[in-house]
Amino acid sequence: MEVLFTFVPREDQQQRIQEEFPEVDFHFLYRDKTRLSTADIIVTYGEDLTAEDIGTAEKVKWIMVASAGIEKLPHQAIESRGITVSNVKGIHKTPMAESALAHLLAIKRSLPVIYENQHKQQWVRKISSSELSGTTALILGPGAIGSEIGRLLQAFGVQTIGCNRSGRQAPNMDEMISFEKVLDKLPEADYVISVLPSTDETKELLKEEHFKAMKDTAIFMNFGRGDLVTDATLVNALQQNEIAYAVLDVFEQEPLPADHPYWLMDNVIVSPHISSKSGKYVDRTLDIFIPNLEKWLIDQSVPTNLVDMEKGY
Amino acid sequence: MEVLFTFVPREDQQQRIQEEFPEVDFHFLYRDKTRLSTADIIVTYGEDLTAEDIGTAEKVKWIMVASAGIEKLPHQAIESRGITVSNVKGIHKTPMAESALAHLLAIKRSLPVIYENQHKQQWVRKISSSELSGTTALILGPGAIGSEIGRLLQAFGVQTIGCNRSGRQAPNMDEMISFEKVLDKLPEADYVISVLPSTDETKELLKEEHFKAMKDTAIFMNFGRGDLVTDATLVNALQQNEIAYAVLDVFEQEPLPADHPYWLMDNVIVSPHISSKSGKYVDRTLDIFIPNLEKWLIDQSVPTNLVDMEKGY
Repeated sequence: MEVLFTFVPREDQQQRIQEEFPEVDFHFLYRDKTRLSTADIIVTYGEDLTAEDIGTAEKVKWIMVASAGIEKLPHQAIESRGITVSNVKGIHKTPMAESALAHLLAIKRSLPVIYENQHKQQWVRKISSSELSGTTALILGPGAIGSEIGRLLQAFGVQTIGCNRSGRQAPNMDEMISFEKVLDKLPEADYVISVLPSTDETKELLKEEHFKAMKDTAIFMNFGRGDLVTDATLVNALQQNEIAYAVLDVFEQEPLPADHPYWLMDNVIVSPHISSKSGKYVDRTLDIFIPNLEKWLIDQSVPTNLVDMEKGY
Repeated sequence: MEVLFTFVPREDQQQRIQEEFPEVDFHFLYRDKTRLSTADIIVTYGEDLTAEDIGTAEKVKWIMVASAGIEKLPHQAIESRGITVSNVKGIHKTPMAESALAHLLAIKRSLPVIYENQHKQQWVRKISSSELSGTTALILGPGAIGSEIGRLLQAFGVQTIGCNRSGRQAPNMDEMISFEKVLDKLPEADYVISVLPSTDETKELLKEEHFKAMKDTAIFMNFGRGDLVTDATLVNALQQNEIAYAVLDVFEQEPLPADHPYWLMDNVIVSPHISSKSGKYVDRTLDIFIPNLEKWLIDQSVPTNLVDMEKGY
């Protein structure tokens, strides 16, 4: 049994896996595809496998993606072979929810201005800070991450409205609506926070009319995928002051091109797709991988975090 | 009955008070002391009254301070006349707790670095963000504000240790210690957050030994009063890397002198005593003032927010 990691965990983490499975042959090889043809299982961040690689990896029966999004996997090649795919859905929720709250609180409590005034060595007390308490958030995609954001927002006294395909109840949401109702609800939201994956349904889900419907004081946060809205639409909405602020962790094109207007817009925060970063990331990946591999070795099944390649999540 | 405000609320707020008490004569005069001699009640931010002013204000029986700290009031002049003093303790808790969380989350989730890289138009994904979840905070002064900080920290999965004079239980603290035990507990804390008022007991409560006892990764936050620690002690602790970061909303001298080292230290955040700022501040002050004035008009008593001038809070 051979397991190929296409990234390299820390020494102690490698040791942890090896000690757990002395009978398995692990390879930790960054950007090195020499072991593809003999690998039974691939553990990857999900951005480095082509359809050709899947062809080469002829023995592979399980791909574990150490990420939540699987849109960069070569879907057809994987599906046609019936390869099992699993992810680490759930492990992003703590760091991502903390990042979302950090950015939101920073804006409400004037941190960008405070930092700038310190930089200029100016003691400026005239500042228009406001509070999270008593406001309303619309959360697009209240899954593991969105619900964790909802839980924290509720602790701050924020009213939470969740929005998903079906409109069925999600945890930590005071109210739920379906995608079809989003336009009606936008005028109530002080923050519109997306953690939606990229699927056929979510691509360009938000259009010009949606930004026009938002409060002109609204903060739009995209922590899901960059294709939720086109750059042209969002740039225009910000320039026309249809909304007050955008905090973006994901973009239509990543890395964000050097000449992109977002960089210099003072009502945009550019976070380079790092909101899920955490010193605990790989450890948590292994917390999911290890029990799944234990089960796999018994009966070639993956008990948790299975991905439906057709649905896309 | 004459009430002198030494600050000027918004028009609608003035109207609210006047409509509530048509029989009372209100004056809203910023930096204008011409009405002192006829005022029965003074409503002030607490920084603009001298002992001489108290002498002039010979009819005054109640001073309402729209602040939590009363250390700038002329204590002796007030006490010798037996003037009732009340404050707005409690109204700071929401904005201040949100500011404390904003600053803490910002550091944990790398916001200063993210902002700086955006400023340089650089897409840098190598960033060492960490999480609040699973860490420990020591809160000096778990009163209204400190307990609210504790409540929010607990929502983020932070262990909270409260520290007050007696060591008696305070809300939202997983553990309580008294001031005498603080040195023993400091090595456990990832954050040391003070919201202590300025009293004889809290002045220079933290000394060199305390910073030496803290983790070298610790974040020290002072949202209480600037005399908790001398600048020399804190600058030295930061320069010697005895702690990792300081977030300061209060200072030995305010405004912070232009040539102070804090301005340029990259492990110090200078917040110019604004963490309690909120668009809701004056409204909340009136929410406390109005019922108290109602009672005062009946029997010259103040039912809430009375200050013990001797204790200092």
